[in-house]
Formats: sequence, structure tokens, C-alpha cells
Amino acid sequence: MNKVYFASDYQEDQEGMAPEILKNLETANLVPVSGYGTDEFSESARMKIRDAIGRNDAEIHFLAGGTQANAVVISAALREYEGVVAADTGHVALHEAGAIEYTGHKVLTVKGDRGILRADALRETLETFYADGNHDHMVHPGMVYISHPTEYGTLYSKAELTALRRICDAYHLPLYVDGARLAYALACKENDVSLKDLAELADAFYIGGTKCGAILGEAVVILNKKLFPHFFTTVKLHGALLAKGRLAGISFDTLFTDGLYERLGAHALEKAAEIRAALAENNWQVFFETPTNQIFVVVDNDTLRKLDETVVYSFWEPYDESHTVIRFATSWATPDRDVEELIRIIRSMPR
Amino acid sequence: MNKVYFASDYQEDQEGMAPEILKNLETANLVPVSGYGTDEFSESARMKIRDAIGRNDAEIHFLAGGTQANAVVISAALREYEGVVAADTGHVALHEAGAIEYTGHKVLTVKGDRGILRADALRETLETFYADGNHDHMVHPGMVYISHPTEYGTLYSKAELTALRRICDAYHLPLYVDGARLAYALACKENDVSLKDLAELADAFYIGGTKCGAILGEAVVILNKKLFPHFFTTVKLHGALLAKGRLAGISFDTLFTDGLYERLGAHALEKAAEIRAALAENNWQVFFETPTNQIFVVVDNDTLRKLDETVVYSFWEPYDESHTVIRFATSWATPDRDVEELIRIIRSMPR
Amino acid sequence: MNKVYFASDYQEDQEGMAPEILKNLETANLVPVSGYGTDEFSESARMKIRDAIGRNDAEIHFLAGGTQANAVVISAALREYEGVVAADTGHVALHEAGAIEYTGHKVLTVKGDRGILRADALRETLETFYADGNHDHMVHPGMVYISHPTEYGTLYSKAELTALRRICDAYHLPLYVDGARLAYALACKENDVSLKDLAELADAFYIGGTKCGAILGEAVVILNKKLFPHFFTTVKLHGALLAKGRLAGISFDTLFTDGLYERLGAHALEKAAEIRAALAENNWQVFFETPTNQIFVVVDNDTLRKLDETVVYSFWEPYDESHTVIRFATSWATPDRDVEELIRIIRSMPR
Amino acid sequence: MNKVYFASDYQEDQEGMAPEILKNLETANLVPVSGYGTDEFSESARMKIRDAIGRNDAEIHFLAGGTQANAVVISAALREYEGVVAADTGHVALHEAGAIEYTGHKVLTVKGDRGILRADALRETLETFYADGNHDHMVHPGMVYISHPTEYGTLYSKAELTALRRICDAYHLPLYVDGARLAYALACKENDVSLKDLAELADAFYIGGTKCGAILGEAVVILNKKLFPHFFTTVKLHGALLAKGRLAGISFDTLFTDGLYERLGAHALEKAAEIRAALAENNWQVFFETPTNQIFVVVDNDTLRKLDETVVYSFWEPYDESHTVIRFATSWATPDRDVEELIRIIRSMPR
Repeated sequence: MNKVYFASDYQEDQEGMAPEILKNLETANLVPVSGYGTDEFSESARMKIRDAIGRNDAEIHFLAGGTQANAVVISAALREYEGVVAADTGHVALHEAGAIEYTGHKVLTVKGDRGILRADALRETLETFYADGNHDHMVHPGMVYISHPTEYGTLYSKAELTALRRICDAYHLPLYVDGARLAYALACKENDVSLKDLAELADAFYIGGTKCGAILGEAVVILNKKLFPHFFTTVKLHGALLAKGRLAGISFDTLFTDGLYERLGAHALEKAAEIRAALAENNWQVFFETPTNQIFVVVDNDTLRKLDETVVYSFWEPYDESHTVIRFATSWATPDRDVEELIRIIRSMPR
Repeated sequence: MNKVYFASDYQEDQEGMAPEILKNLETANLVPVSGYGTDEFSESARMKIRDAIGRNDAEIHFLAGGTQANAVVISAALREYEGVVAADTGHVALHEAGAIEYTGHKVLTVKGDRGILRADALRETLETFYADGNHDHMVHPGMVYISHPTEYGTLYSKAELTALRRICDAYHLPLYVDGARLAYALACKENDVSLKDLAELADAFYIGGTKCGAILGEAVVILNKKLFPHFFTTVKLHGALLAKGRLAGISFDTLFTDGLYERLGAHALEKAAEIRAALAENNWQVFFETPTNQIFVVVDNDTLRKLDETVVYSFWEPYDESHTVIRFATSWATPDRDVEELIRIIRSMPR
Repeated sequence: MNKVYFASDYQEDQEGMAPEILKNLETANLVPVSGYGTDEFSESARMKIRDAIGRNDAEIHFLAGGTQANAVVISAALREYEGVVAADTGHVALHEAGAIEYTGHKVLTVKGDRGILRADALRETLETFYADGNHDHMVHPGMVYISHPTEYGTLYSKAELTALRRICDAYHLPLYVDGARLAYALACKENDVSLKDLAELADAFYIGGTKCGAILGEAVVILNKKLFPHFFTTVKLHGALLAKGRLAGISFDTLFTDGLYERLGAHALEKAAEIRAALAENNWQVFFETPTNQIFVVVDNDTLRKLDETVVYSFWEPYDESHTVIRFATSWATPDRDVEELIRIIRSMPR
Repeated sequence: MNKVYFASDYQEDQEGMAPEILKNLETANLVPVSGYGTDEFSESARMKIRDAIGRNDAEIHFLAGGTQANAVVISAALREYEGVVAADTGHVALHEAGAIEYTGHKVLTVKGDRGILRADALRETLETFYADGNHDHMVHPGMVYISHPTEYGTLYSKAELTALRRICDAYHLPLYVDGARLAYALACKENDVSLKDLAELADAFYIGGTKCGAILGEAVVILNKKLFPHFFTTVKLHGALLAKGRLAGISFDTLFTDGLYERLGAHALEKAAEIRAALAENNWQVFFETPTNQIFVVVDNDTLRKLDETVVYSFWEPYDESHTVIRFATSWATPDRDVEELIRIIRSMPR
């Protein structure tokens, strides 16, 4: 019997691309275009993204992946003596194999709250740094990194994001938003941060394609262009310039046509809602509430062993001696039948 | 009137992918697989490549592009105090926006001969370095880089490659071969260096996909595994780990099925041969003979202005006050009708 | 009225050099020698250090400072995908302005115990890393860094150091010991780790000169030479090669003649003992016991304001709302009269 | 019989420090001052240098050596996508073990003229770079590096330096001058570039101490402060912050008192003039004329073998099959008696 896959939206169970994108890829296949993101598909995608974010002057570059986008954007913005401030659970702090440090910069961590870098915690960190007369011997904060949704599937409110922005302004720090799973925020009813808000509040952010139905690619959106001169060359020296720019171009051109990007996100959220409802009905314990496509559940270890037979999930962390926190994730491609099967399994093990 | 495109095999006129690959991409689209190159397509591609190169123990990683592959392989192999030796025309020396230096290493250039790093020139460089009693104050040679075909479309003979290997052995230097356009060497009748020879003579090389019909990707083949411990993590920290590994996996799985890789190369070479024949018939001056998909022609500047109206070519270098060297390049995707049109144009301007 | 200085052994109140060294510097001043540490003074110093550590084959390099020595040694030993493991209070983690990260490597912190990296904590960290099936996506531990004495003035016992060594052996990790204040350990009666023990247990360590009476300089002692090939060139590329090698050469040649290094350390410890006795007699609260030249005291904030008038000390951390932890440090150069004055002040404020 | 040493001003025959500096070092030895260059000697040195260069607002940092100063200044000024432009004979291009590349930046070389980067050659390089429409794929010029005197002992005229400055202005490039041997330019009657001129024409330069009589150290003078924010922290992260700042402080405080710096330079030039006169009188062939402390002589190989018995010189390069170019260098410390002996030797071998 096959297991159903809910471990991750990208790692253990990765599908290809949204069918609409595949269709456009086929149509365009033998059309010759120029390389390195200067093609007409990429240009069209840039126009549509600029329209969606309400900033005609934004500079947009398509990179192949999220770790790469983070390393390039962060190191391009920082001076040698600066580090990037992030929640201690931030992707750049924990899950990128030292890619930020490889560019020569320290990640300055602040204790996060379920993945969120709270404005108060950021302010306190910055106040402490500048209060200390001896900070000349320390790494200077040079940029603030957050992700939306966070690595825990939680969301910033617009009010929180605005508060972060004000602190960044007070300390002359650029704000960068990692949107690896942005589709799963934008389609979420609890989310009040629009693309236009991101473009207004961030100095740079990226719109995730790799985890949200694209062939591949992340659209790095630069609002504060003075901070990133000659970003094309910077991308190239990092080995991150995508020769086959058409792949990302066709992806984002299609994702930003007829609301596909939000629709793909919405599918994942609907599926997550069905699973949440089944968990609640059957009295499963949620670890903490998350509004997006990731669901954290506390399971006793006997149940876990039974789940192992039929479901692929992510181990998150031990809860206590006899319980474990696990994660179910849905995605743009989660099949209805898999959700039905997972719900059947949940129902078969009421708490 | 539309121009015909012969400027480059990837930059100004880039097509999508070989139709056989597109077909497999479609079939696999909604098949869930694991990410980061651990998928079944990538695994199948690795098996086929291992078979083709005659080394079952080779470690194979798929990266997104050539500059990236070069930077990751070279910096992974070098110690801090080492640089990479390359012909002064080598891609790593001239055309990578400082990507090698960004990893902290100098490119030690040796005067090349039409793109080729001659064994004698390499030996002399190494002898001079080690003869100098004071080389502790200098960058140590740590790897030898060549490309096959070279940036000039020329080829190493097996004898030359073997001579380079012997020098590398004498100086305990690894040999790395950049095969960005390897298909255009393998399909060439003048070429006597097989994939098996590369696997025997090099410590690492890459099989180019991006410029040879793949969706995207380069297959980095590691023969000397001790030199590259934990290469997966190294790739990730460079931001070079392809989350959507399936794209390269499907590409190389297909390219190494039924000889597609050589067939794609052969198409480019046939088209180049047709153009060469037309040039010869009409007494156009070839700058220097090249056996692969790049053709260098000396054109007087009046002719150049006329060509500009109908053909897109590459400017190579000034020849003298009234002549210019230009390049025509063919590729796996060059349409027959474009070649016919170019030949018509050549015939219309006999020398 | 002049204040007495006990803030630091190097930062706020730094003297020149031990008079014995000054005398030798004068004598040698116009003797021409070769540069870059190849001079006869440096060579003599190396011989004496090799003798003192009981390893005739040790490779010894003199660098100008501690941050530099740490950055060069650590980055020379690590592969790209590796980071250095240190206590969270380690100098490389907190106080080096990102110098380790600048070389491209992450500092992997383990919760320290009063500055000490406990063997159990290290083992647990390593077990967790290797237990996690997915550690290919993480920075690999590549070296263990400790300092002796620690940044808190505490000491490793020989048993603890041996336990760390065994774990390092089990995980094939080199062990590196930062001895910035090593003189203050070697002269300490609570210390049971000799120079010979360090040479036996560490792969590399440095003997601090800058904070211990030298003109300047740290003697980097390499025991595991295979780990550091061509270290001379590595030092140079870091900009750390001291052209005026004679300065460190004369320093260490003198420090390792007639037990000067230990005598300088002993002076600081005697002065610290006198201060400790006065604190105890007058019921001042010690924050935690330290055997070396740093004394941590809990002081109520009213007393602190009075102290401010006559003593320069270091602020360490807040203790509670009305108390503060401060540090007094002695050094090789602390004058007797300053200690007498500090004791007078302590007596004037009994608890 | 002892040989006389004229091989180098720093490498094979390095003396300690000018006696005036030694005297001040002794006087100050037990004076406690603050560390890291914040001491009163360093502050006094800064005031005197500011006075000498006519710029009260200049920021001055003391670093331990020249390679270090170059690496820190250059990498601090460059953005990631930029390289430093230098003559192909420049110290940063050839003699620094890859220290610039280690900071992630390429050295963009321009063919030099006896060590000098000619304004025309610089202009041509920059024009070519910006003329090429495709320079987005190339390393951007980000700073111009020259040395005065050059590595060949030659000098820039004020007119030439001004011409370089104008080109730098036109291309918005900072100009940096390496003054490792600046004393030997300032004291030279052929030199018309004063310290005030350097301060007016350069964005940053350094005044060499290590090769010019200091204990150690180079005074990095920053005129364009916006280009180097938080330079103190930048210095520290490079491991280049001199804890014992007093050493450089006392050196430069003394060097810039009563014209000592120029006097030390003048001594070397007088000794060089005496040697030049003897060479001319005895018809020795000078390779090319140099006005400073380095003399290049063409010697037949028989003579060379005889010289080997009594003189230590530098091998420069082969001249032809039977002749060799060698270098004699004088310094602030060259003893009169050694010059007399060298002259005696020259006279004993008239051409």
C-alpha cells in the first residue's frame, strides 16, 4: 500500500509545475529568445509583477532558489562589517548550510516567537547594540531578514510589519522579506499583508516560485535600488545567474496571469483547512495554531508508530517523553484523494 | 524582415529544450518525487552517465549553470593558499564576473594557444613557480582548469590531454574539465577524447546540459572523490543546490538515452559544416580553423554592414583597420531554414 | 586624583612590554636579520618553545594578535562546508567582529558553563548533528575551539581537556586552544594543564604574548602539521604575515628564557590573590570563583557609584535591579601600589 | 668574511627601528594607555600626520603591514561586483599571495610602464570596459591602486598623478596610493609629489612605517571618509586591529617629529647616490634609471659569480643569455661602511 505524503511542500514530495505553466512552456519551446533573463517572457513577467505590487520602478531578477536568493540579496546589501538580523528560527540562521556566512557575514539572531521576529525584540536588540559604547568591536546590524509566512507557517500582520519597518527606519536598516511560500500567505484569509504592502514596507523581497508551482525560481523584487547597484553582475559573480532565464520567465509570467499564483496558494489552504477540521473533530492536539499550509500536531508515540505505516509526515521536535510534535504540510499540488485518505486515517484514531 | 540568428549557442538565441526532454517532462509532471537531486529521474540519469563514462563509482551532482559549476568545483578543491591554473582565455579567467575570485581564489593564467592550455606552457609555469625559492609568498597552483571544447571552439587531442594529466600527476595537481559544450566535442569527427577518456584523465569534469538541449543543468562528475568530501553540502552553501532537481534529472536521463546527447551535438556540427562549405566555396577568410560549432570569419567592414541587415553574429575582435573577426555559432536547435538563409547570404557576397 | 586601573589586562590599561624584553630589543636593534619570521630571534624562540612543550617537530608561527590567530588557524583547518564549534561565550563567537564569519565559516555554539565547553555538552551537540539524517543541509562541525583560561577566567582541568580530546578523536575533529592569557593559567596553582599537555592534547594552540608581556604577538603552535599545509602562505594571504618578525621573535625568545613567561603570569595571580583576600575579609560577594587574573564581584549600585570615583573596572552584566556584576583584572604589569590602593578602597566599604 | 647586504630594504636585511623611536619606546614602556590604537601616542601621531598632510579631518588608522593595509582598504572600498585596477607589476597583483582575491575581489591589471600605471593606459582600459555593451558579465573597475614609489623604485610626477585623478573622477573611481616606501619618495629631489598633494589627490593612501624605520606599522590615511564607514570594525574583522596600538603610535609620533621620516628617507637616497656614482664612474650598465633607493644593474654572469662572494643583492630577471638584471637596495639603516665596501667592490670590477 502506498503512503500519503504530507511531509513537506517541497522536499519529500515535490511535483513538477502547475499545468498552466507546462502548457506555456510547451508552446514557447522552440521560440528563440535571449538568455540570462533578458528574454521576452521574463520581461512580461516583470511587467505583471510590477503591476501586482504597484511599483512600476521595481527592479526584478529571477534566481533559481531560495537559499541562493537570500545569500545574494543579503551579501549584496551588507558592507563587510555588517551582519543580518534574523529570528533564531530564521531559514538563514538554521537551514542554509552556512550560505550566509560563506559570503562573509554573521547572522545576528534574535529570539523569535513561533517563527516571528517581534518588533519589540528587534528594538531591544538594536538598543542594546547601540547602547554599548564598545560596539566598534562587534558585527554591526546591517539588514533585517524576515520570512512571510515564517518557517513555522505563521504570518506577520500588517501592523507588525509596519512596526518592524519603523524600527528599521529609525536605525537606517533595510528590511528584506523571504517569500519562499508567499502564495500560501497571499491566499490566506488571516493574512492582511498584500503584495502592495510588501512593496511599500520592504526594501527587497522575493516571491517564491519553487515551492509554489513554478518550473523553478524566485522573483527577487528590489524596491530600494540604490542599495543594490549592478545587481545583475552581483548575481553572476555568485554563480546565480540563470542562463535559461526563460524557465523562470515563463513561470512567473503564467503565475501572474489570471490570479494563478493566489489560486495555487488557495488550493493548499483549502486542503489544510480540511485536515484541520478533521483533527479538531477527532480531538487531536494542535501544537500551536497556524493559518497557512503547515499544521503542527502533538501525537503520542504509539499513535506515531501507527501513522508511520500510512502517512509520510515531518518530525518536528519531541514534546515530552511520550509525545512528539509532527508536521503535515499541503501544497499547490496536494491531491484531493490524499487528503481524503489522511482524514480517514485521522478519524480512525480519535483521541 | 526577420534576421537569422548565429550569434551564440545560448546567449542571443536560446531555445527551450530538446523535444524528447519536453515529452518526458510532461509525463512526469505530477509524479511526486523527492527534492534536491535525490529523485528517481536524477538517480536514473546518474546510472546512465556512470555507464557512459565507464566508472560505476563516480559521484554525480547536477548544478544549474556553468559559472556556478566552475566556482563550486574549483573552490571545493582548493585550499585557501591555492589558485586555479587556466589559459588566459579560459572562461574562469575572463567571463565569469569574478565568480572564482569571489570564492577567495586567484586565477593563475598561462598564455593559451587558440584557447588551448598547451602542456609545455603549463610545465613551464609550474617549473618557474617551484624553481623560485620564494614561492611561499605566492599563490600556489592548486588545480588545472581546461575546457573541452575551448572558448574558441578548439579541441584537445587525447595525446594533449594525456600530457596535461602527466604534468598534473608530477605536480600533484587535480585536473578539471569544463564541458559546457561537450556535446559539440563528442559528436565531432576530429575529436578523439571520449567520455571514458575524460573520466580516466580528469579528477572532475562537467557534462554541459544548458547549452546542449537540456531544460537546464550541468552534470558535475567527480572521479577523485577524496578531493570533494561532502560535496552536497558544499553545493548548498554556495546557494547552488537545485531544489527542483527533477529538471536536471529528467534532462540528463533523456540526454543519455538512445544517444540523444551526441545526436544533438551532431546536428550543430552538420549545420556548421554546411556553413563552412559555403564560406569556402565563396572564398570567405576563416580566422582560424575550428572543428566544432563555432566558426570565426574575417570580414571587411563594408560587408559587415551589409551582414548586419540580415544576420545576427558575434563580434569577436578587430582584425585590422578595415576588417573584423566575427563568429557564427550553431547549436542543437539551429533550424535548417536559417542555415539555408545564411548560406544564401554568404553566396550573395562572394570574396 | 588619579584612578587605579583594574578594568582589563589589555584594553583600557595596556603597558608596553616586560623590561627583560625591552633590554633585548635594544641590544638587537641594529642587528640586521631577515624578515617575515625567518630571523634568528624567531628561530631561537621556536627552539625554546619546542623544548618547553616537548615536541621537537612542532611548527611555530608568530602572528600579531589573537583575533587574527584565531581567524587564520580556524579557516586554514576548515573545509568550506565546515564550521567551528565553540562555547556560546567563546571569543570567536562574540568578540571578534565577525572575523571568523569573514573567512566564510559559521561558529556553531554550544551552551558554555562559566566559559567552559563541557565535554558532555559537546558530545550531545555532535550526537544530535550526526543523528539527524538530514545533516547534509547543515554546516558540519569541523574543529573544536576552546580558550584556556576561558573568557571568564576559568580553567579546564586536564581530565576535562582529555575528555574533550576523546570526543574529538571519536568524531575526527581537530582541537584548537586559544591561549591569549595562557601565562595566567600556567602560573596558577589550580591549573593542572601544562604546556606539554596542551601539545599532547591539541592539534594546534597559541601561546599568548600580547596580553602577557610581549612587545606583541601570539605563538601559533601546530602539532598536527598535515592539517595546515603551507601555513606560511596561508598567513600571508590573510594579511597576517608579520614583516617585522623580529618583534615577536625577541619577545618569545625572552619570554621562554629563565621562566619569564610563568613569572609574568605569577605576578598577576599574586596581585589577584591579594585582592581576593581583601574582598573576602570585607564580605564582598564574588559572582563566581575564578582561579586566574579575573575577579567577578557583585556590587550594589550605590557602592558602584562610589567606586566610580576611584577605580576603573569592567562592567560585566546586571545582577538584579539593585546590583551589578563587575570585573577586576590584574596583569603582568599591575603595580603593587595600585593593588594597595584598591585594597584600601575595598576595606573602606565593608559589606 | 662577512658579505654586505643590499638585497632589499626589508626582507633579507631588516634592522629594528630608528634610534629616536627606540628611545621613546623605552620612556613610554610602563605608561599604561588604552589599547587598539586609542592611546595618546597614536592620537598625537594622528595630529602630526594631519598637520603634515594639511587635512585636519583625515581619519587615520595604524595597521601592522602593507599587504594587510592593501587588503583591508581595497576590500572595504569595493562592492562585491568590483575589482581593483592596478599595474600588472603592482604589489597587489603579484606579491601578496592572493590576499586581495581572498577578500573576494579580482585584480584588474593594466600593462605598467616600469612600475607606473600610465594615465593613458588606465583611460584606455576604462573606455574599453564601458564601451563593451556586455560589461554586466564582467568585473567592474571599483578602485585604482598605485604605489609611490612603485615596485620598480620609479616615481609618479604630480602631473601624472593629477591626470590619474581626473580619469578617476570621470569614472567615479576612488584612487588609493600604497606608500610602503613613501619616505624614499618624499626625500627624493626628483619627487614633486608632497604629502599634501597625496592628501589632495587620493581618496586614501598609506604612509609606510615598516620599511622606513618604524617599530612596525603603516598609517592608513582616509580622506574620503564616506567610502569607509566604520573602518575600525572593518579592520578588526580582517584580524588587522593592532591590540598593541602604542607600537605604531610611538613610531609615527616620532617619525613625524622634527622631520625624522624625511631624514630616514634621505639617508637611503644619499647612500644610493653614492652607489650610483660609483657604478657610473666604473661604467656599469644601469637597467633603467630610478631616482629612489632601488638600483637596477645589468651584470654579466661572470661578474655575478664574483659578486656572489661578497655582496647580497636581489636577482631581478635574466637580461640575455650572458647577462642578468640585479637590484641593490639601500634603506634608512644602511651603514656607511657597507656602502664603502660595495663601492670598493664595484671599483674592483670596472666594465
